[in-house]
Amino acid sequence: MADKGARTSISKKTKKNLMVFSGRAHPALAEEVAEQLGTQLVPTSAYDFANGEIYVRYEESVRGSDAFVMQSHTAPINEAIVEHLIMIDALKRASAKRITVVMPFYGYARQDKKHRGREPISARLIADLFRTAGADRLITVDLHTDQIQGFFDGPVDHLMARPLLADYVREKYGDRELAVVSPDAGRIKVAEQWSAHLGGVPLAFIHKTRDINRPNETAANRVVGEVEGRMCVLVDDMIDTAGTITKAADAIMAEGAAGVIIAATHAIFSGPAIERMEACAAEEIIVTNTLPLGPEHDFEGLTVLSIAPLVSAAIKEVFEDGSVTSLFGGRA
Amino acid sequence: MADKGARTSISKKTKKNLMVFSGRAHPALAEEVAEQLGTQLVPTSAYDFANGEIYVRYEESVRGSDAFVMQSHTAPINEAIVEHLIMIDALKRASAKRITVVMPFYGYARQDKKHRGREPISARLIADLFRTAGADRLITVDLHTDQIQGFFDGPVDHLMARPLLADYVREKYGDRELAVVSPDAGRIKVAEQWSAHLGGVPLAFIHKTRDINRPNETAANRVVGEVEGRMCVLVDDMIDTAGTITKAADAIMAEGAAGVIIAATHAIFSGPAIERMEACAAEEIIVTNTLPLGPEHDFEGLTVLSIAPLVSAAIKEVFEDGSVTSLFGGRA
Amino acid sequence: MADKGARTSISKKTKKNLMVFSGRAHPALAEEVAEQLGTQLVPTSAYDFANGEIYVRYEESVRGSDAFVMQSHTAPINEAIVEHLIMIDALKRASAKRITVVMPFYGYARQDKKHRGREPISARLIADLFRTAGADRLITVDLHTDQIQGFFDGPVDHLMARPLLADYVREKYGDRELAVVSPDAGRIKVAEQWSAHLGGVPLAFIHKTRDINRPNETAANRVVGEVEGRMCVLVDDMIDTAGTITKAADAIMAEGAAGVIIAATHAIFSGPAIERMEACAAEEIIVTNTLPLGPEHDFEGLTVLSIAPLVSAAIKEVFEDGSVTSLFGGRA
Amino acid sequence: MADKGARTSISKKTKKNLMVFSGRAHPALAEEVAEQLGTQLVPTSAYDFANGEIYVRYEESVRGSDAFVMQSHTAPINEAIVEHLIMIDALKRASAKRITVVMPFYGYARQDKKHRGREPISARLIADLFRTAGADRLITVDLHTDQIQGFFDGPVDHLMARPLLADYVREKYGDRELAVVSPDAGRIKVAEQWSAHLGGVPLAFIHKTRDINRPNETAANRVVGEVEGRMCVLVDDMIDTAGTITKAADAIMAEGAAGVIIAATHAIFSGPAIERMEACAAEEIIVTNTLPLGPEHDFEGLTVLSIAPLVSAAIKEVFEDGSVTSLFGGRA
Amino acid sequence: MADKGARTSISKKTKKNLMVFSGRAHPALAEEVAEQLGTQLVPTSAYDFANGEIYVRYEESVRGSDAFVMQSHTAPINEAIVEHLIMIDALKRASAKRITVVMPFYGYARQDKKHRGREPISARLIADLFRTAGADRLITVDLHTDQIQGFFDGPVDHLMARPLLADYVREKYGDRELAVVSPDAGRIKVAEQWSAHLGGVPLAFIHKTRDINRPNETAANRVVGEVEGRMCVLVDDMIDTAGTITKAADAIMAEGAAGVIIAATHAIFSGPAIERMEACAAEEIIVTNTLPLGPEHDFEGLTVLSIAPLVSAAIKEVFEDGSVTSLFGGRA
Amino acid sequence: MADKGARTSISKKTKKNLMVFSGRAHPALAEEVAEQLGTQLVPTSAYDFANGEIYVRYEESVRGSDAFVMQSHTAPINEAIVEHLIMIDALKRASAKRITVVMPFYGYARQDKKHRGREPISARLIADLFRTAGADRLITVDLHTDQIQGFFDGPVDHLMARPLLADYVREKYGDRELAVVSPDAGRIKVAEQWSAHLGGVPLAFIHKTRDINRPNETAANRVVGEVEGRMCVLVDDMIDTAGTITKAADAIMAEGAAGVIIAATHAIFSGPAIERMEACAAEEIIVTNTLPLGPEHDFEGLTVLSIAPLVSAAIKEVFEDGSVTSLFGGRA
Repeated sequence: MADKGARTSISKKTKKNLMVFSGRAHPALAEEVAEQLGTQLVPTSAYDFANGEIYVRYEESVRGSDAFVMQSHTAPINEAIVEHLIMIDALKRASAKRITVVMPFYGYARQDKKHRGREPISARLIADLFRTAGADRLITVDLHTDQIQGFFDGPVDHLMARPLLADYVREKYGDRELAVVSPDAGRIKVAEQWSAHLGGVPLAFIHKTRDINRPNETAANRVVGEVEGRMCVLVDDMIDTAGTITKAADAIMAEGAAGVIIAATHAIFSGPAIERMEACAAEEIIVTNTLPLGPEHDFEGLTVLSIAPLVSAAIKEVFEDGSVTSLFGGRA
Repeated sequence: MADKGARTSISKKTKKNLMVFSGRAHPALAEEVAEQLGTQLVPTSAYDFANGEIYVRYEESVRGSDAFVMQSHTAPINEAIVEHLIMIDALKRASAKRITVVMPFYGYARQDKKHRGREPISARLIADLFRTAGADRLITVDLHTDQIQGFFDGPVDHLMARPLLADYVREKYGDRELAVVSPDAGRIKVAEQWSAHLGGVPLAFIHKTRDINRPNETAANRVVGEVEGRMCVLVDDMIDTAGTITKAADAIMAEGAAGVIIAATHAIFSGPAIERMEACAAEEIIVTNTLPLGPEHDFEGLTVLSIAPLVSAAIKEVFEDGSVTSLFGGRA
Repeated sequence: MADKGARTSISKKTKKNLMVFSGRAHPALAEEVAEQLGTQLVPTSAYDFANGEIYVRYEESVRGSDAFVMQSHTAPINEAIVEHLIMIDALKRASAKRITVVMPFYGYARQDKKHRGREPISARLIADLFRTAGADRLITVDLHTDQIQGFFDGPVDHLMARPLLADYVREKYGDRELAVVSPDAGRIKVAEQWSAHLGGVPLAFIHKTRDINRPNETAANRVVGEVEGRMCVLVDDMIDTAGTITKAADAIMAEGAAGVIIAATHAIFSGPAIERMEACAAEEIIVTNTLPLGPEHDFEGLTVLSIAPLVSAAIKEVFEDGSVTSLFGGRA
Repeated sequence: MADKGARTSISKKTKKNLMVFSGRAHPALAEEVAEQLGTQLVPTSAYDFANGEIYVRYEESVRGSDAFVMQSHTAPINEAIVEHLIMIDALKRASAKRITVVMPFYGYARQDKKHRGREPISARLIADLFRTAGADRLITVDLHTDQIQGFFDGPVDHLMARPLLADYVREKYGDRELAVVSPDAGRIKVAEQWSAHLGGVPLAFIHKTRDINRPNETAANRVVGEVEGRMCVLVDDMIDTAGTITKAADAIMAEGAAGVIIAATHAIFSGPAIERMEACAAEEIIVTNTLPLGPEHDFEGLTVLSIAPLVSAAIKEVFEDGSVTSLFGGRA
Repeated sequence: MADKGARTSISKKTKKNLMVFSGRAHPALAEEVAEQLGTQLVPTSAYDFANGEIYVRYEESVRGSDAFVMQSHTAPINEAIVEHLIMIDALKRASAKRITVVMPFYGYARQDKKHRGREPISARLIADLFRTAGADRLITVDLHTDQIQGFFDGPVDHLMARPLLADYVREKYGDRELAVVSPDAGRIKVAEQWSAHLGGVPLAFIHKTRDINRPNETAANRVVGEVEGRMCVLVDDMIDTAGTITKAADAIMAEGAAGVIIAATHAIFSGPAIERMEACAAEEIIVTNTLPLGPEHDFEGLTVLSIAPLVSAAIKEVFEDGSVTSLFGGRA
Repeated sequence: MADKGARTSISKKTKKNLMVFSGRAHPALAEEVAEQLGTQLVPTSAYDFANGEIYVRYEESVRGSDAFVMQSHTAPINEAIVEHLIMIDALKRASAKRITVVMPFYGYARQDKKHRGREPISARLIADLFRTAGADRLITVDLHTDQIQGFFDGPVDHLMARPLLADYVREKYGDRELAVVSPDAGRIKVAEQWSAHLGGVPLAFIHKTRDINRPNETAANRVVGEVEGRMCVLVDDMIDTAGTITKAADAIMAEGAAGVIIAATHAIFSGPAIERMEACAAEEIIVTNTLPLGPEHDFEGLTVLSIAPLVSAAIKEVFEDGSVTSLFGGRA
């Protein structure tokens, strides 16, 4: 049969081709990632028609590629998401072999459950929309809750910025008496991980009341745990309007803390965020560049660490079927 | 067994409840539709978070409802689409019995095929996204191409505005020597239907070259067919930047037409559209309100006919499992 | 056409028939629920073949029924789950019209994310298995995390036992100086809700270290927040081996609390649970009957409140397309 | 809320409309079924285009109907199947509420497993194709193997013609010494059911060798079991080319049987079937009309019983959510 | 870990094996394609059972193959389609790695929308049936409308025969005064592309009325555009009964054209086609061999160009993940 | 473009890594298989939580692996199945490239049809559950009925133990006058294959009545066929409680057989099986190790042949895309 087989088929060694694509939301990060991988972004035409419809076309063949499609879900966020979906559809129809969606910031992650009746669960919807468009897998950074991984029906590589941020804090503030403070009862688990990372320093949290109709706004704040005389590290996954976190900083200082710094992965910085952060008691605010920050977002005390090395290392591991567990906080 | 069954089950006559929902893109049309149905829009909270994420919640129980969710895909069009999807997700999770998506204008309908390699087919993507979110069926008006009906895996009620527009034209201009002109070789089929509707008047079309990279822009124009001395009705499905249609009007007049009027279903009116229409040779421009038109879109010679009676009649037929074929141009 | 239609179809008013089914894991609860609904469980044959395969058959026609299938996922839990799935398959193939899965306790809810690499997300798997078997919707009580609702691709009615438990506590202990204590940093959010329900009493939590490989076992405990001199209500969603919660009770007493009571929805009570609870400092342990409790689970100080009224009210609302938001803690 | 609800929804009692549709393969049976249900077939246009493509259109509204679509999969069988699929697609897109496929004979049922490597499992493919086209449920008669029910992902009502055939045999031949004979080792299970139905008469079977490449052709035959002096009832599910069954009849007679009659549900009667049956030793051949039989299929000794009462009763039960288990041989 | 990994896994370089399969509808084309690829068709057993059911089996292992399955959807077209589906099922179950369906002519492409109510959209149904059977991707030639690409949920390589046909015309007739004529208002877009390909020659079209119930038949014809004195190239995607195109040829000559030739991709040639073409005014009729043409289809003036080089080049590109955009008219 | 491509992508030769995983049901078989493949089982943590929930985690990276996951569905069978499903979910989420489920014994295979109304078809449910969890393909041994292959929507490699067993019988008993006996009318087809394998020896079967409600229990037995003076080989696919097979052995001896041996693939051996087999007339009972057999299952006259060479050869063929048809009884 071997002989016969030789006549009825044509053989060819297979190889895979990593290609990196970027939407228009945050090209600087994508370029940095591509460069660290030793390649360039695939040239892509993308523009808006007069009525706002988005057009995308790749300028090179993507047939058979192992495609990584980056887009940060930044404002205008629905534009960013729809563009991301359209890019995936175009890759699917152009015969990319595998499509990995890279979302440094996962839009709508906060609507991960029904807070009240007749609400959507938008974070699950997002996962399903990307699956429908053609996404085979997901790479993302510091999801609002870990359960969102389970919303996607496929592999999710969930990268953690905490080591990056915490190493910076330890190096700069490690000689102080530290405490880790969660701005919210719902995120003390994360603060526990920081505490462990910083050598077991004490924990505290802010007991506050949110108006369920306006989750961005905070009500009263009460510090639970010991912060007096300590340099407090306020940790969160994201800073949006900065209301919660800056009030928390002020509350901590009011309790006699020696100082306060803020560390968060996602710098959304919308509305009055800059003003609030400039006005608050925090000495330094440390974030990453999962979202684009323009000059208008800069202010004294802001430190931006690049997430690109983490993302490019993850892409490399996925492409090479390797596994550097440390990238994923042990969850690879 | 009847006796036994009586003890192990509870019976209840079933009824269905029609409920009409509207996104924020074009509430005036939705209210008009609801009123014609003899009901009101279901009170709905919808707002944007600071970073642009959309929040939606219904203020009343929708459990078991026969839900009709209206949203015109108008600029900012991606906002409108994502809000529409989120509304459907919320209905699905709140146990609506059947979800009918009403799109008076179907976004991305023009990207219904690959014009060139490595493009998306966004119109199919849109159909799949709505299916994934939970849409059971679709009502829409004058799709860019009829084939788009086949993109959705379920029933589509495709309403036709042509009778509405053509009756208006016949009544007002019926005593003139008419000709029907297609602004584009690709849409002469529609012009044929107009010609038949107006009693078999002559047909013509504009032979033009488009730059495939910028489908909104037109190149040279040549009139094929007899228009001299006739009152010409230029017909199209939509007016976006109005470049094509106004150049066509001017070309027709240059060929010696007695006059020209324009009739189109969807008034997108983006960019320089108003300016161009005001400057062109057309005496009257007749459109419908499938898309919202603000005061800034008004100009002399513009006539807007309401699509609401057509949409509300269709919703009524769908709700009552009736069939008025005339609504659908014979395609119900 | 009316005349013609009359000859080519046969009409019939529709009604729906509620039927309640129970697996073998916790029939007492199902019977209580059926009785409160004014019906009886549908007679069902279910037994194990010699090799452990489960056989199920309904003794009455279920064609066209609105079926509610109850099973508590109790030990042996995989038996309970597979039986539940088989029951749904039989209903689907016997033409039930709608199948609502009722899980008073949702098995594998704790494996709702990857704690480490190469783990399953079993809670999502469970949701998908039930969907595949034929489940249209889900009713469940106090999920380990709210995000699990998003794992199921359909409506989920998430009932809350907190009002039931907290009303009992308020009535019996309302005249004491109370504090609410979370045994775990990850569940302080729930404790906040209890605090609000009890009129804004102080909050505390136990800062403990878990061995990630053995999530059932607890390490060191530190109380964060003020508990001295107060009657402390330790709240959790479930009591499994009772290690965490009883150590928490002891830690609270060691900090000078006036007393401690424990309130939890799901009484798993496995392994050394009874022994630990009897030995611990808690005066009273209040749970519900979402899971079956035999005589061997009884001990002094245990109070069991029935969840049946909550479940039967929810089934009634789902059957009648009603909406009593209070059932769902405002999330209906 | 009742008041408010009244203003935002419109209520209507629901009813269901049974409609019966027929393809062109076997309209006589469909008409008989419709008549027994007290209705008429829905007028349907169906014809072949010049290149053989099939066109179907319903002449009346089918919106909201409970549709039963009949087609016998008779030669040319692929025409019949594709027409059946197209009819279902048209019903789905025209908003039928529920689509039940009625296949008195299920095409490709014999290819229900891989007899050899690199074969299709066409019977599963057929089930999936009908599901894809839009079938919600299936009614069929005497499947080649019962397992085919499990190929369809939804309810299957599997009707049995055996009672019809066996009652006829008992009435006409009940006073003779009967034996039941299976023409094939693989179908003795069915013969066992006949034996029980006829009061426990003896069983026999033909031990034969088939060429696996040509399953229609038979090799050597050996009778296993006692047939001498008995009136033998040869039972099978279908008669195709009649080679197997007529050789079996002859073999039985050669073993000294007193006589032989043949009973089978599906009269495919292809190729040399008529000739073989006329020439064989059987006194009477009893079949049903699940497949159309023309005058060219008639011959002395052929008895055709109508399956229409069984099919119409099943449709009635499905429509009314009833359950007459006897229709389904106890398997309803 | 490398060492450990070495012990718990076995590595192997991967290769891919192109294999070409053909149904029985048009083996000559498939053989030509295989030969141009440097291979042979995989030996396949295929025959009809007596009742018309199709049996297929591959004579060699196809495990892990990159399978290309060719079948032209020619009359009897439903046989061809069902055989094609069964071949795909067999490949899926025999572990082919990737299955590309090659349809030189896509059956039912003309039923790509609902022309009237209660019709199927058979072209979408066909796409879904092939997806269900196991098709990963599609290669096809000159679809009736481009939108059909969007009916398939996966990559579609849409080949264009126009360059082949138009180059032939240019070479043979390029020294004449040409005009391009569309036989139908709905296909002028294609005529525009021909016009551009031939250097911008004038355009015309036939304004005709079709009876919507019998789309194969034509009514009145009127030429719109200038054809007098020109050699007219009548272009269409397919010639079925040849009624439309031959009447168009005659109408053009009646308007004073110097001559007329016909060019079309798909030569269906059914019913009276040959007779009509022989009798009509056209000097030459140029088609491709996407469909099989027997000696009975031959006549003076018929030229058949082979599509095999285009198809084999496309298969090669797909297999090698290359991209020769020119194959696909720029749409690769 | 080559140059440009070189800059926008990174290339890498691909390889595949076979990894073998085992659940806790039958590790000895999995280890034997792995050893024969020249590898080791991937180290896996698996244990039960106190309430019976199963936890699984792989200790090495499985990213990109060609994973073969073995689990015999033995008692407690639902534990084994759920563990198997969870293992697959973990592989899917950890980015295994392809997941092949290896079930030496397929649980619930006997519930492959509805014996009566309102029963599940659990064998199809099992197939769908594994598909949902993430299984790409299946390897299994001697399914209860061949049709079960069609329940899984993907490739199934169905291995046959018959050659292994029959070769053993032929070698040991080949010099005796043999007969092959089926214990059940439904399985004579298998006995026919044995008969052919042993050179065409005579066939017989036991005509017995089962109580449909308790398929494990047998009623009256009658031998059909000649067994007198012959060494009878009683063949079945599985031995569960051994009631049927041992009664058959006794019935055969009562008919004057010279001796009886029993051969079956799956040794379930539940309940009174051992006792019955020891007491029955059979001289030898030959089974394979598809299911684990402990010392308590051993008895005089039991012979266990290893299935590992067959399974490991199949895994090798699947991994290498080879095809040794003989492994699959000609059905590869």
